Amino acid sequence: MKREPRVVEVRKNILKQNDMVARELRQRFRDAGVFVANFVSSPGAGKTALLERTLTRLRPRFRVAAVVGDLATEHDAARLARSEAPVRQITTGTLCHLEATMIGTAVEGWALADLDFLFIENVGNLVCPASYDLGESLRFVLMSVTEGEDKPLKYPTIFNSADVAVITKIDIAEAVEFDLAAANENIQRVRPGMETFRVSAKTGQGMEEYLAFLEARMAEASGIVSP
Amino acid sequence: MKREPRVVEVRKNILKQNDMVARELRQRFRDAGVFVANFVSSPGAGKTALLERTLTRLRPRFRVAAVVGDLATEHDAARLARSEAPVRQITTGTLCHLEATMIGTAVEGWALADLDFLFIENVGNLVCPASYDLGESLRFVLMSVTEGEDKPLKYPTIFNSADVAVITKIDIAEAVEFDLAAANENIQRVRPGMETFRVSAKTGQGMEEYLAFLEARMAEASGIVSP
Repeated sequence: MKREPRVVEVRKNILKQNDMVARELRQRFRDAGVFVANFVSSPGAGKTALLERTLTRLRPRFRVAAVVGDLATEHDAARLARSEAPVRQITTGTLCHLEATMIGTAVEGWALADLDFLFIENVGNLVCPASYDLGESLRFVLMSVTEGEDKPLKYPTIFNSADVAVITKIDIAEAVEFDLAAANENIQRVRPGMETFRVSAKTGQGMEEYLAFLEARMAEASGIVSP
Repeated sequence: MKREPRVVEVRKNILKQNDMVARELRQRFRDAGVFVANFVSSPGAGKTALLERTLTRLRPRFRVAAVVGDLATEHDAARLARSEAPVRQITTGTLCHLEATMIGTAVEGWALADLDFLFIENVGNLVCPASYDLGESLRFVLMSVTEGEDKPLKYPTIFNSADVAVITKIDIAEAVEFDLAAANENIQRVRPGMETFRVSAKTGQGMEEYLAFLEARMAEASGIVSP
């Protein structure tokens, strides 16, 4: 345990370096007028399912693209590509989060100014991605109704680092006896005032509200006044 | 990224140190005749629910205890304590795994020789706990039917580091359209020959087989010949 302070110090330097790259990225995204959303959650919370539906729903009216991170496999990129949006996969090996430099590399060759939305699907992990800014405009933390209502209390850092919470798989809430009031209370306890959506990527429930929010935030960021 | 090699080196030293502590722990557990099972999974896969039922079911005939790790809160210890087994909570702060020294500290004061089973519930994470030996006799990796059948392919390291797989929440497999054959195939692809159980802590489905396995392995380890 004596070595811990040294690890922390090295980690701090890496984080600082990441923050610098993220700041540059954020400026690039802003200059290009692309709205960037970073999705974090535990494995299996439904990031890919939600993103696939999001891309499919937005694509007729907006120019969308996605970058997806995983330790191994390119399954998720293949799933997202069914939306016919351009998609790139980052495989991180044993690294449990995406870093800003990886995003910079992944979007190389894309004309960012031709995009309205760029979605980032982070590695499935409720701890590691919290500290890594990817230059995103907005960070969404997903929790599925099957994960238990106490996740915000158990993983306060990632809920604190996110801007918006999305409760997923709401169509099976009853089957798993999910207590929505308790979940909301826990979210608000960790992050007072946090905007929260309840969706089912499978049935489409709650998607309208969530998509309207995305569009409004994108319009706001790009200076378009929504009616 | 230039600093990465240094981090890896420091991490290797920590891992080596952990392995040494784990080796001593394993010897202590063996001398005391206590069978130690380490449960790893992503958050919300149902470790606590399965352990609560495991403790409750084993307690009438065996001497059981549990140690549970979380970043924050002592919820899980409180839930496990409903089984009336002795339970200790480790809160790890921002650390996404348990380490061998934490287990050593947590079991201080317990007469290990008076225990048949010690269960360890690791921090909910499919990446970090993979590399940390806790001196356990057996490592169980849990995946719930709601997480998707591809988890073994996406998190091969943790499936490789575990001895046994448990597919949880099997009672809602149909509701979430879980493809058991695909899941099994993926588990076997990553870890050929891996023993796999299918359970529901809620309905009790599959618990007999899983508990019989636990008892048999405990008897084997302690030199008791089962009938």
